[in-house]
Amino acid sequence: MRPPGIEPGSHFQYNLNMKIAVAKGDGIGPEIMEAVLNIFKAGKVPLQYEMVEMGKWVFDKGFSNGMTPEAKATIERLGILFKGPMETPKGKGVKSVNVTARKTWNTYANNREFQTLHGVDTVFSKAGIPIDITVVRENIEDTYGGIEHMLTHDVALSRRFITRPGSLQVIKYAFEMAKKKNARRITCGHKANIMKITDGLFLECFYEVAKDYPELKADDVIVDDLCMKLVTRPDLFDVVVLTNLQGDIVSDLCAGLVGGLGFAPSANIGDHICIFEAVHGTAPDIAGKNIANPTALLLSGLAMLRHVGLTENASVIENALLYTLEQGVHTGDFGDKSIPSVNTTQFADAIIGNFGKKPAVGAKEIIPNKPGTPEPLKLELNPMMVSVETGDETIVGVDLFIESDEQPVAIAEKCKRHAGVKFNLTNISNRGTQVWPTGSIYTNLVNQYNVRFESINDEPLNQQDVIGLYVSMSGNFKICSFELLNAWGDKKAYSMAQGQ
Amino acid sequence: MRPPGIEPGSHFQYNLNMKIAVAKGDGIGPEIMEAVLNIFKAGKVPLQYEMVEMGKWVFDKGFSNGMTPEAKATIERLGILFKGPMETPKGKGVKSVNVTARKTWNTYANNREFQTLHGVDTVFSKAGIPIDITVVRENIEDTYGGIEHMLTHDVALSRRFITRPGSLQVIKYAFEMAKKKNARRITCGHKANIMKITDGLFLECFYEVAKDYPELKADDVIVDDLCMKLVTRPDLFDVVVLTNLQGDIVSDLCAGLVGGLGFAPSANIGDHICIFEAVHGTAPDIAGKNIANPTALLLSGLAMLRHVGLTENASVIENALLYTLEQGVHTGDFGDKSIPSVNTTQFADAIIGNFGKKPAVGAKEIIPNKPGTPEPLKLELNPMMVSVETGDETIVGVDLFIESDEQPVAIAEKCKRHAGVKFNLTNISNRGTQVWPTGSIYTNLVNQYNVRFESINDEPLNQQDVIGLYVSMSGNFKICSFELLNAWGDKKAYSMAQGQ
Repeated sequence: MRPPGIEPGSHFQYNLNMKIAVAKGDGIGPEIMEAVLNIFKAGKVPLQYEMVEMGKWVFDKGFSNGMTPEAKATIERLGILFKGPMETPKGKGVKSVNVTARKTWNTYANNREFQTLHGVDTVFSKAGIPIDITVVRENIEDTYGGIEHMLTHDVALSRRFITRPGSLQVIKYAFEMAKKKNARRITCGHKANIMKITDGLFLECFYEVAKDYPELKADDVIVDDLCMKLVTRPDLFDVVVLTNLQGDIVSDLCAGLVGGLGFAPSANIGDHICIFEAVHGTAPDIAGKNIANPTALLLSGLAMLRHVGLTENASVIENALLYTLEQGVHTGDFGDKSIPSVNTTQFADAIIGNFGKKPAVGAKEIIPNKPGTPEPLKLELNPMMVSVETGDETIVGVDLFIESDEQPVAIAEKCKRHAGVKFNLTNISNRGTQVWPTGSIYTNLVNQYNVRFESINDEPLNQQDVIGLYVSMSGNFKICSFELLNAWGDKKAYSMAQGQ
Repeated sequence: MRPPGIEPGSHFQYNLNMKIAVAKGDGIGPEIMEAVLNIFKAGKVPLQYEMVEMGKWVFDKGFSNGMTPEAKATIERLGILFKGPMETPKGKGVKSVNVTARKTWNTYANNREFQTLHGVDTVFSKAGIPIDITVVRENIEDTYGGIEHMLTHDVALSRRFITRPGSLQVIKYAFEMAKKKNARRITCGHKANIMKITDGLFLECFYEVAKDYPELKADDVIVDDLCMKLVTRPDLFDVVVLTNLQGDIVSDLCAGLVGGLGFAPSANIGDHICIFEAVHGTAPDIAGKNIANPTALLLSGLAMLRHVGLTENASVIENALLYTLEQGVHTGDFGDKSIPSVNTTQFADAIIGNFGKKPAVGAKEIIPNKPGTPEPLKLELNPMMVSVETGDETIVGVDLFIESDEQPVAIAEKCKRHAGVKFNLTNISNRGTQVWPTGSIYTNLVNQYNVRFESINDEPLNQQDVIGLYVSMSGNFKICSFELLNAWGDKKAYSMAQGQ
C-alpha cells in the first residue's frame, strides 16, 4: 500500500539548510509568523524559507482554491508548508483553503499535542491535573469528503465513508508516533456500537495494527464516554486516535483543557507533503496591532523542526518558551492579570533572551540534530491503496431509496409486484427504522423509504438482475438512490434496519 | 406536520393517579429503581406503576428486541416509560434495546439537564464556575439510522441523513422548553461549515423556528468550538440543541462537567410516548450490594414528574435531594472521603428525612401540581411528515459510485464513451477529492470512485435517461451505488467535490 522505502514518520529527514514553503496567512498571521521566524533566526535554525501566496487575498484575486498555481508548485517541490491562520470567504461557495490543502496533498494524519503549560491557567492546572495528550485525527475521510445530496425536498444525505487503507495509514502513523513518544497508552476513540460497519472497520484496523506493537498498551473507548472522561480524568490518556469528525471535536476539547487554540499546535502529516499550522482564527479585530499571541504557531513550528530532524533547535527554543511562560511573561489574552502584558515582539524577544534556560517543570531533552537524508519522493501516478480481498465478492440484493408519502403497507403491495423471480422484498424502513413487514404505528415517517430486496435463497445476482428490478420499480417510484447489497464469502456486508 | 391539537411539551398532562410503565433494568437497575420509587411513595407522588419486562434477561429469553410483546403493548397504552439502565448482549447481532425504544416510538428529542450539585466536587465546582446547561439532542436521525454498506472490500459507507421535518420537530421542542425555562440563550451546535447540506439544513431550520421566539437570544456555534468553550467557559451556555451524534458527544461531555453520568438525567420526548431513564451503565460488579448511587435515576424521575404536571412533588423531592447533597451525604462513588459513605437505602432515607427542607443554593420553586388533561392520542396511521416544496423538482444528473483500481484518466476515457447525447461527464472524485478533469498527483486513491454526469445545458432529465446511462456504464464497471442529482427551481441540491 505504501510506496517501497517509505516508512511513516521517517520520510522527512532532509538535507540541512533545506528550504520550506511559508504562507504567512491572513489577519494576525503575518505578525505572529514574523515573531516565530525571528525566534528561529535567533536560534540559528538551519532552514531557508520560500514565501508562497495563499489565503483570503488570493481568493479575492480570483483563485477559487485560495492559492496561486506558483504556491501549489512550490509546496509540492519543497514538501513542507508552514502556515499562519487563513480565512476562507463566506457565502461565495468556495471551500476552505485549509481543508483543500489537507485533502489534495493527502495529509492523512492530523497530529495535535496538548500539554499543561505553566503560566497558562486553566481549571485543570488549578486542580493540579497534568495534561499530556496527543490526538491523532484521520484527516481525509468521514463526512469531510463533503459528498452530500438532497434525496427529496425534505431529506438531506451526507455520505460518511471510512476506508480500510485510509484507516490503516493513519493508525500506523499513530502507533509509530506513540512508540517514539514512549507512550503509556494508545486509545482508539470511536462509535462502533452505533456505526458498526464504518467505525467497526476503523476499530478492526486499530487492533490489526496494534498486533505489531506489543510493547504499547492499546485499548478503545466509545467517543461520548471518552469526552466525559477527558473532562474528569484527562491525565488517564496519552495518545488517542480517531476518525475525522470525532477527532476534530476531541482535539478542540483537548485544546480547551490546556487553555484554548492559542496553545494548541497542529501538524498535518502525509507521505509526501506535510503542513504545520496554527489552527486558531485570523482575529481581524486585533490584526496589525502587534499584540497577538504567537504560542500556537511557535509550537507548530517546533513540531516541524522535530519532523525534519532539527531536534536540538526545537528543544532549545521550547525550553526557552516554557521558561518564559513560567516567569509569568504573557500577551494580553492569557496569564496573570497582575503582571502587565507584553506585545508580540516583546514576547518573542523574551523567549530569545531565555535561550539556554530550562523550565522548572517539563524541560525537553536536548537531542542532537540528525543529518539530512533523501529528497521527498516524486510520484508518476496517483498512489492506489488496495488491500487483499478475503472471500468471493457476490451481489445478494439491493437497497432502493424511493420518494413516497404513502403508508408502508401500500408501498409494500406495489413493491412485491416488481420483485420477480430473483428477488424477495424483505424489509422497508424509514429513517433506518423498520416499518414493514412489522413496525410500530408510533414511528413518524418522512417522504423517503428504503426498500430492501434480497436474492431468493441467497443466490448470487449480477448487475443485469439489479437493472431489471430498477427499471421495473422506476415505473412506480422515483428512485433517489441505491446501494448494492454485497457479500464476501458468506459474510453479508450491510446493516439490518432497526427492528429487523 | 404535527397531528392537530398536539403541541410540543403540552401533550402529557394526564389524569392524576395515572399509571406509568416501569422497567427496573439490569445490574444495579432494580435496587436504584426501588430507592427512587420509595422516595416517590414517601413524597406521596400520585402515580401508579405497571411493571414491564425489558432488558438483558428478555433478550436471553429469545426476544430479539429486548422487550416482551406485553411490555410493548403496556408502554404504548400508558404513554410513559420510566426505566433503569439496561444491558444489550454483545456479539449476538442484536441492536440496543435503548435505541430501539427511542426510534420505534419516535422520541425525537433527548433532553438532558446538567447542573452544578453542591456536594459533588468537580474541577469546575472547585474553580467556582456554575453549570446549568440543558442539551437537547435529536434522537432519531443522523448516522443513528444505522444504514451502512460495504461498497467495495475496502470502502464502508454510513448514510448520514438529516430531514427537514425531523429537524423542525426537535428544534421546536427545544425552543418551547427554553421559553418555559426562561433561558438566557439558545444555541445551535453544528458542523455546517463542512456538512453544508445536512447540517446546513438543520441550521436553517433552527433560525426558521427562532423567528417565532423573538424573546429568546438564539445563536449558533460550530461543534468543535462549542466543545472547547464548554471546557473553558461552560457558564456561557444555557440551552444547546444539536443533531444526534454531536448531541451524544456534547451531552456526555456536559455530564462530565457536573461529575459524570451518575448525576445526569435523561428524558426522551415524543408526541405519544416519552421515556425517562438513567443512561449510566448497569455496573454488574456492584449489583445486588445496595451501594449504587440512585441520583441520576432520581433526577430522571423528577423530570418525568414535571412532564406529567406533578411540579410540586418534583420540587419538594429535588429540594430534599439538593439539601441532602449539601450536607455531605454521599454513596461510595462520590463526595468527601472524610465523611463515611452511606448505602443506597440510607441515601434514599436521608432524602426522605429532608422533605420540606431547602438547599442554601439553587432551591426549586414550589409550583402547584396541574390537574390532568386528555389521554395520550391514539393513532390510526403512521404520521407522515412532509413539508411544502418550493420550486419545481427536476433531475439534472447522477453520481455513479464505481469500483475500480485504475487511474483517473483511464476511467474518464471509458466514461466519456457512455455519456451519450444527454449527459456530460463533469467530474471524477475519490474520497470526495476531485481527481479529474484536474487534480493532484499527491491524492491517494481507494478502489471506489464517484463519477458525476450532469445534463447538457442543465436540461431536465427523467429516470429513463438515468437508466440508459446506468445500463451502458454497467458494461464497463461494477456500480456500487448511485445518487440522483436533483434541483429545485434553479437551486442545485448537491455538493461540489473538493477542488471542483
